[in-house]
Amino acid sequence: MSEPAFDAESALPPGPVSRSRVRVRYAETDQMGVVYYANYFVWFEIGRTDLLRTLGGTYRELEADGLTLPVIEASCEYAAPCRYDDELTIVTRGRLLSPIRVAFSYAIERPDGVVAARGRTEHAAIARDGRPRRLPPLLREALAGSRADGERR
Amino acid sequence: MSEPAFDAESALPPGPVSRSRVRVRYAETDQMGVVYYANYFVWFEIGRTDLLRTLGGTYRELEADGLTLPVIEASCEYAAPCRYDDELTIVTRGRLLSPIRVAFSYAIERPDGVVAARGRTEHAAIARDGRPRRLPPLLREALAGSRADGERR
Amino acid sequence: MSEPAFDAESALPPGPVSRSRVRVRYAETDQMGVVYYANYFVWFEIGRTDLLRTLGGTYRELEADGLTLPVIEASCEYAAPCRYDDELTIVTRGRLLSPIRVAFSYAIERPDGVVAARGRTEHAAIARDGRPRRLPPLLREALAGSRADGERR
Amino acid sequence: MSEPAFDAESALPPGPVSRSRVRVRYAETDQMGVVYYANYFVWFEIGRTDLLRTLGGTYRELEADGLTLPVIEASCEYAAPCRYDDELTIVTRGRLLSPIRVAFSYAIERPDGVVAARGRTEHAAIARDGRPRRLPPLLREALAGSRADGERR
Repeated sequence: MSEPAFDAESALPPGPVSRSRVRVRYAETDQMGVVYYANYFVWFEIGRTDLLRTLGGTYRELEADGLTLPVIEASCEYAAPCRYDDELTIVTRGRLLSPIRVAFSYAIERPDGVVAARGRTEHAAIARDGRPRRLPPLLREALAGSRADGERR
Repeated sequence: MSEPAFDAESALPPGPVSRSRVRVRYAETDQMGVVYYANYFVWFEIGRTDLLRTLGGTYRELEADGLTLPVIEASCEYAAPCRYDDELTIVTRGRLLSPIRVAFSYAIERPDGVVAARGRTEHAAIARDGRPRRLPPLLREALAGSRADGERR
Repeated sequence: MSEPAFDAESALPPGPVSRSRVRVRYAETDQMGVVYYANYFVWFEIGRTDLLRTLGGTYRELEADGLTLPVIEASCEYAAPCRYDDELTIVTRGRLLSPIRVAFSYAIERPDGVVAARGRTEHAAIARDGRPRRLPPLLREALAGSRADGERR
Repeated sequence: MSEPAFDAESALPPGPVSRSRVRVRYAETDQMGVVYYANYFVWFEIGRTDLLRTLGGTYRELEADGLTLPVIEASCEYAAPCRYDDELTIVTRGRLLSPIRVAFSYAIERPDGVVAARGRTEHAAIARDGRPRRLPPLLREALAGSRADGERR
């Protein structure tokens, strides 16, 4: 691959960041011989799960506590394919948009350093009754570092 | 394909039967160019959902009524591959094993008449509290026709 | 659901359109009790497969002919949840962006008329050797109707 | 969980063994709040991929070399549910059934030591032209240790 490797993290907006590893499963490939495009969104979810864990909570606990974070927007730009058995890195950054809204940015890094894809998801914080509910203070604080940087890539 | 087409239904045990259609999704293929093996179990679930519907209930209603049918055993034999965009028929037969246990048999039929796979799942009827609960009488009756035929293929 | 139903088609850009039906699979739900967000992209692929079929070709034939349409961008906005066993309509519109680039817009319509989600994918036309290749003339023509309408939603 | 934990490995037939770790993804759950049954077969594939790696080859290399191992039979018995974010261990054992046939046995171990499921897959060794082809000698040797133990669980 002649594409120049570049630092996935530097291209992401500031804020808390985590790095997760996934190895591409056979189930994730399609007959084009590469990873099927919808599966990147599954990896994004792994990324934000891990990021929340590094911030001192888990999404599992949030849900047990009655708070869910349904996705309200999701997008991905695909730059280079990923293949079976590749060991990928998911670089995830989180950002508080408001007390009841959070966004995550993602980069999928291949073993050769190429950024295969970049994505973004936006989430509403919702209580069990379906109404908006503020994120827990510690999580809001941890995610708020980058609020002054503008909301969008 | 030189394999002789044969009647999928005749190879299934007696009992109520339904036929469902699915068209193979690109997402369901893998890099071997055929359908990934785990996806047949997703089709089986479509088959049993449709069979229950023809028997006058829906699985959705069963769950709303507090009864679930978790899988306790599942198996599949793969005879011939399925490919992207193939229009397949799922032939499903249900059988009551006991008031709290039910089994389904499946055949996946390709457009050329070849049976691509056969499978079987066994389910326990469980209440919300995790304890066994008898299936509703109407469903038990509908599924009981074949009880004398022996439990296994 | 108090949300007013509105016409999914009118909100899509002009161009050839198709309507596909899918019934939500149990496999497509998650523990939140609704469809997992990545699965909408699988439905989008069903939509564009069907749209190409109505335009007189199939994606299967395109690939057999050495042309692939890898996704280079994908996005989705989620407005309302979809649930197990719902019968959904995928409304798909296609648009030629250039002889080697095509975009599709999607709306997922629930049985109650609510538009659960809207999405968009953009695709490059690529030959087997990985180089750009013009779409077949008939397909270009069929998709070109809306070129003057501006490229983006 | 009152179920006694027992050693998953001791219940598997002898032969080379590997242990893989997976963390349950949100995408893998369904509306019952537990892992959807078909996903266990995806984990099995991770297990056998890892086992082959420990035996000194990779499935990726086998395929690059023109040999595929399509599944011809697959089964799973489900004993206890797995939940989102659980860290599971996949214990995999491989066994040569003949120079052109191999079987793998699997146990899915939960963090609390409970064996959630046991499974088995059987595979044919097939060349690119679709005809049977002997497994590479080194792999045959590594998998042959348990041939005298009887072919089935």
